[in-house]
Amino acid sequence: MAARPSESPSPRVVIVGGGFGGLYAAEALKSTPVEVTVVDRTNHHVFQPLLYQVATASLAPSDVAYPIRAVLSGQRNTTVILAEVTAVDVADRKVVLKDGWLAYDYLIVAPGARHSYFAHPEWEELAPGLKTVEDALAIRRRVLLAFERAEREIDPERRRALLTFILVGGGPTGVELAGAIAEIACKVMAKDFRHIDLRETRTILVEAGPRILPTFPASLSAKAERSLQQLCVEVRTGASVTGISPDAVTIGKERVSAATILWAAGVQPSPLARSLGVPLDRAGRVIVDADLTIPGHPEVFVVGDLAACCGPDGRTLPGLAPVALQQGRHAAHNILRALRGRPLAPFRYRDRGTMATIGRAAAVADIRGLRLSGLPAWLVWCFIHILWLIGFRNRFVVLFEWGWAYFTRQRSSRLIVGEVRPTTPSASPRARG
Amino acid sequence: MAARPSESPSPRVVIVGGGFGGLYAAEALKSTPVEVTVVDRTNHHVFQPLLYQVATASLAPSDVAYPIRAVLSGQRNTTVILAEVTAVDVADRKVVLKDGWLAYDYLIVAPGARHSYFAHPEWEELAPGLKTVEDALAIRRRVLLAFERAEREIDPERRRALLTFILVGGGPTGVELAGAIAEIACKVMAKDFRHIDLRETRTILVEAGPRILPTFPASLSAKAERSLQQLCVEVRTGASVTGISPDAVTIGKERVSAATILWAAGVQPSPLARSLGVPLDRAGRVIVDADLTIPGHPEVFVVGDLAACCGPDGRTLPGLAPVALQQGRHAAHNILRALRGRPLAPFRYRDRGTMATIGRAAAVADIRGLRLSGLPAWLVWCFIHILWLIGFRNRFVVLFEWGWAYFTRQRSSRLIVGEVRPTTPSASPRARG
Repeated sequence: MAARPSESPSPRVVIVGGGFGGLYAAEALKSTPVEVTVVDRTNHHVFQPLLYQVATASLAPSDVAYPIRAVLSGQRNTTVILAEVTAVDVADRKVVLKDGWLAYDYLIVAPGARHSYFAHPEWEELAPGLKTVEDALAIRRRVLLAFERAEREIDPERRRALLTFILVGGGPTGVELAGAIAEIACKVMAKDFRHIDLRETRTILVEAGPRILPTFPASLSAKAERSLQQLCVEVRTGASVTGISPDAVTIGKERVSAATILWAAGVQPSPLARSLGVPLDRAGRVIVDADLTIPGHPEVFVVGDLAACCGPDGRTLPGLAPVALQQGRHAAHNILRALRGRPLAPFRYRDRGTMATIGRAAAVADIRGLRLSGLPAWLVWCFIHILWLIGFRNRFVVLFEWGWAYFTRQRSSRLIVGEVRPTTPSASPRARG
Repeated sequence: MAARPSESPSPRVVIVGGGFGGLYAAEALKSTPVEVTVVDRTNHHVFQPLLYQVATASLAPSDVAYPIRAVLSGQRNTTVILAEVTAVDVADRKVVLKDGWLAYDYLIVAPGARHSYFAHPEWEELAPGLKTVEDALAIRRRVLLAFERAEREIDPERRRALLTFILVGGGPTGVELAGAIAEIACKVMAKDFRHIDLRETRTILVEAGPRILPTFPASLSAKAERSLQQLCVEVRTGASVTGISPDAVTIGKERVSAATILWAAGVQPSPLARSLGVPLDRAGRVIVDADLTIPGHPEVFVVGDLAACCGPDGRTLPGLAPVALQQGRHAAHNILRALRGRPLAPFRYRDRGTMATIGRAAAVADIRGLRLSGLPAWLVWCFIHILWLIGFRNRFVVLFEWGWAYFTRQRSSRLIVGEVRPTTPSASPRARG
C-alpha cells in the first residue's frame, strides 16, 4: 500500500481508548465522512462486566475480550493503533504517544479508570484490583494457588489464613467476586482436594458504608446480602479497612489473617485528565459541559469513567458501561452535528437499569423501578449480558460455558498461568516420611 | 479432614510430572491398593499436540490444558501436589521438592523435556520454543505484536522484517507452526490492517536435514512441503542456522532480517535425569531397561521424553505423546505386577501412526503404513485429536472453535496479554501531522 498523503482531506477524529466509550464512538462514525483513529494500549476491548468470571476461572480471557482491530475491521474509514497515550496537547491539537504523536481535528478521550487505593498506594501490591485481563489472570492465580498451598499446609493457623478470602468494597464488583469465590470454595473445589476441609474457607466482604450495593434500592441491597450469606459469605458493612499486610487485613481494630486480599473499593480516573488543563472534580474526573466537551475546546470530548457529568438530578453519573457507551455514541453524533454546522446537543443518560449477580442462579436487578431478585434477576442478567457481548462467537461460547458450569458446578478455566512464586517459607509443608 | 497417620499401610507411588506419561500412569492406578501422589510444577496437564494452536491464536489456553487435580478428582487413592521437584534421592527413596520431600516405595519419573539450543543457550531468549502454556502465550504475543508494529512502521525495510517469521526446525511442531502462521498472515489478518500489504509477509521454515518431517515416509514429507508452499511458506531444507540476533537469522551465509524467530529444532530432557545417578544417552536421556526401570532400582521407572528406550528395531523411541502415554500405563502395570510378586513385563510400543497438520484442511498421516495427505488426513487428524482431548468439555469447545475458524477464517483468541514491551526505537513511527 502506498504511503498516504500527509494532509488528509477528511476531518480527523482520534479516539483515545477502546473500552465501551471509545468503541461505541468509533462504531457511530462508521461510513461517515471522517477519518477515525482508535488508539489503545492493548489490542483488545474488554467486556468488563464479565471480567470477574475470568478472575474466578469460569471464563477464558478470550471469551470476554475481543481484538479492537477485528471489531472495527469492516469500517474502511477507521484505523486502529496499538500505542500508549502519554498526554493530550489541546493547544496544538495533538495526542502525544510514547513513540510518536497523532494530530486531530476532533478528539474523544475515553481512557477509563484504574483502581484507587486512596492514601495507601502501598496496598496495591497486596490487594490487587480488577480492571484488565492481566488483573483477572493475576487474581485467578492468587485464588487458585491459595487452595494449592492450603492442600499442602499442615499448620492449622496457616491453612485457615490460606483459605480466607477478603474482598474490600461492596459495590457490584466486590459482590460478584465474593459470590463467585464463595461458590468455588464451597462447591467447585470440594471433591478435588484431599487434605483441606472446605468448611474452613471464609469469604469476607468488607464495605465501609451502611449497606452493600449502595447505588441500588435498599430492598435489593438487603436481598443481595441475604443471598451472599446463603453462600457463606460474611458481609461486614460499616466496617473500614485500616491496614493491609501481606498476610492480614485490619478491619476496624480486628486483625484477620488472610492470604488473598482483593480490592474493589475505588477507582481513580486516568492521569490523562491532568494534561487537558481543565478543572477536575474531587475524584479527579474532568468536569465536562452538558454536550460532553471541555471548556474552551468544542472539539475535545471526554466520555466514560473520566467524565464527571450530567446526571438527571445534577448528580455525577456513575462509572458504568452503559454510561460510557451512550456517551461515546453521543460524542460521535455531536462531532457529526458540528461538521454539518449544527449546534451540539446535551447528553441525556437513559437509565435502562442496573444489576449485579451473586453466584449461581441469584442476582439483583433494578430495571426502571422494576426490582427483581433471585432466579428471575439472574436469568435477566444472563440474557442481557449475552446480548451485549460483542461478536456472535463469544456469545455462543459464553452461553455454553455458563450452561456447563450451572449443571456440572465445574469451572473450566482453572489454569494457573505465569510465574508461580515460591510459597512463603513455611515451617511445615505437607510432606510424608 | 483429620491429619492422616504418618505411616501409611499401602505402598506409596509417587509420580513426577502430569504430562501424558504421568497422567496415564496415575489413571492406570485408579482403584488399586496403592497410595498415589502426582507432583507437577504447574496445576495443569497440557495437551501438547494442540499447543501450537494456542500459540497461533486459534484456541484459548483452557481449551488445551486441564487442571490435573480435576482430571484425577474421582480417584480417591490419588493426591495431587503443586510443587517443583529438584532431585531424586534413589538411595533414600525420596523425591526432593523445593520446599519439602516425598518418600516413595515406587517412583515413576515423567518430567518431560525442554528446548535444546545445543551450543547456543543465548538463542533461547531470541527464538522462543513451544513446550508450555506460557511459551504458547509468549509466541502468540510476539506474532500478534509484529503485525501491530508493522501497521505503524513506515520504513519499508523495517516493515518487511516485522512481517518475516522464521521457524527453525522442520519436525511436526515447526511444520504446524509455519502452516498456522502463514495462514494467519495471508488470510486472517488481511482485512484488519490498513497500512500493511500482507503480500509482504514471509514465513520461512529452516530444516538442517535433507527433508522436513524426517520421521515420516519420504513421500509424505514431499506432500507436506508442497502444502506448505501453497500457503506461501518458503521451505529451506539442508540449511542450517549459524547465527541468531534480535532482528535477523543467518541461514548458512545469508542474513535474513526477521522480527519473529521461533525455535522448534531440538529438545533436552529434564535435568532430573542426572540426579538418578545412572547412565544417560548422548541426548541426556536415561537409558532404561526393557521394563522401563533403571539399572539397580526395580522400584524406579522412567517414562516419556526422559526415557531412552526400546524401539522395535533397537532404536530409541521418539518423544511423542503416544509413546509417553503407553509407557506411563506400562510402568503402572509393572508396579501392580511387582506388588503381586510377578515379574516385570518388557515395554512394547504399539505404533498407531504419526501425523502432522499444515493449515486449514491439509495434513499428512502415516497410520500403520496407510499414507494419507490433504483433506482426508486432516479429517483423520481432527477426529483423533478431539477423541484424545481430555474431558468432554474441551472436546466440545475445540470442535466449535475449529468449525468456526474453518468457515469464517477468523481467529478467536487474538489477545495480546501481558507486558507489551515498547517497540525498538524507530526513526519513523507511523504518525500523522
